[in-house]
Amino acid sequence: MPCPPERIHGRCVLPPFFTGAGELAFDGDDLHTRFMLLLESRLSKAYSGASVRIVCLDLEGVLVPEVWIEFAGRTGIPELRRTTRDEPDYDTLMRYRLDILARRRLGLSDIQEVIAGMGPLPGARVFLDSLRESYQVVILSDTFYEFAYPLMRQLAWPTLFCHSLETDAAGFVTNYHLRMPDQKRQAVRRFRELNFKVVAAGDSYNDTAMLGAAHGGILFSPPENVAREFPQFPVARDYLALRAEIDRAFAGLA
Amino acid sequence: MPCPPERIHGRCVLPPFFTGAGELAFDGDDLHTRFMLLLESRLSKAYSGASVRIVCLDLEGVLVPEVWIEFAGRTGIPELRRTTRDEPDYDTLMRYRLDILARRRLGLSDIQEVIAGMGPLPGARVFLDSLRESYQVVILSDTFYEFAYPLMRQLAWPTLFCHSLETDAAGFVTNYHLRMPDQKRQAVRRFRELNFKVVAAGDSYNDTAMLGAAHGGILFSPPENVAREFPQFPVARDYLALRAEIDRAFAGLA
Repeated sequence: MPCPPERIHGRCVLPPFFTGAGELAFDGDDLHTRFMLLLESRLSKAYSGASVRIVCLDLEGVLVPEVWIEFAGRTGIPELRRTTRDEPDYDTLMRYRLDILARRRLGLSDIQEVIAGMGPLPGARVFLDSLRESYQVVILSDTFYEFAYPLMRQLAWPTLFCHSLETDAAGFVTNYHLRMPDQKRQAVRRFRELNFKVVAAGDSYNDTAMLGAAHGGILFSPPENVAREFPQFPVARDYLALRAEIDRAFAGLA
Repeated sequence: MPCPPERIHGRCVLPPFFTGAGELAFDGDDLHTRFMLLLESRLSKAYSGASVRIVCLDLEGVLVPEVWIEFAGRTGIPELRRTTRDEPDYDTLMRYRLDILARRRLGLSDIQEVIAGMGPLPGARVFLDSLRESYQVVILSDTFYEFAYPLMRQLAWPTLFCHSLETDAAGFVTNYHLRMPDQKRQAVRRFRELNFKVVAAGDSYNDTAMLGAAHGGILFSPPENVAREFPQFPVARDYLALRAEIDRAFAGLA
């Protein structure tokens, strides 16, 4: 429910979070997070300032679960738990995955139904709503638009740069297309060329190039070995801390 | 209210528009537009496909009113109707505007209150909601984040690339900062470098560089002389036609 604007020291502090489609019921933890984020956001320069700012966020492990792992659990197909740690060749891994889906007669609509059931991580929607009141946000992910679709709806359609899938007339996934190699780092580079200040956050080793390319990088709930190998990136383990690190990173850029 | 997914020829056609914060009451025209857009969107490839697509939209005259003109009308300050047609030097024009605001003791919060009262153009929210279900959308504008803020909230926080303002401790606008020159065309260029297919739409002469830089350009309710001078860009005069032209432009790129 919108609240009237308030004035704090002559500056318009607009009411908190656009609540979106109301599809999520907030539990106690989310309400608490929401309240704390409200306090935090009043301390940050809401959506203004001489420098213009983009937050780049990884998707899986930051805002939503690891999609393939979660999918494997929900469909009872343990073979789909395989990741690049088990099969380092990405094309081989993707062919393996698509082959399993085909043999199980799981079409894109079936897959989307399972993914819609996952939902974003607890607190992610509130975190993202608040962030979008203060910064431009672009999600940089190596997932596929067709998989991310239900989750993007649940996150109120943030801008997403990822890859795409091909389906046949019967609705089965037949191929995948990587939009470009190293797409996360390349996107950050272009935003910098467009004179944005960029702060990026991700949870794993394959995000560190993106973090390094940004003006500021943050690790969100990373594995211990990644945190140890990249001590230059502050670590946040919940959304309040992540928001604080984002605000701090921008403030430090002046 | 979300509707359950439907299957049309084995493809998941997800329910229509995420309704957002519910701050706008839909009138009869909007409901009609919404229904027609639903039909249209079923014919387009919803959020999928081997090529990845960004729609770049101008803001003023496409999704919202001309902000300064509308502001002049609502505050009864005709001097603020002055545009680059009257004063071609942009810096001179901006200094003139900021000076008037200062002399009238209109701080940023006052300005935002007036702008919040404008609202997006009728049908714009529905148009944009539908568009975001099928494409990535980035708004490219030469306005300022601090002015656009209330309108972005009402449009459910689409990604916006524009410029910024500086305010003093008392909340008055003291300066403006152009993030970069020729920012609309430069943004389209970077999206193409990131391997997106880009279709752009704008309403005026200063959008034609952006339109020309994209894979496809569309003029939305342009002045007659602009439409005549740029016959290569199809013209749309309402949101249904605009959506049809966007879909057609992407389909033509294969």
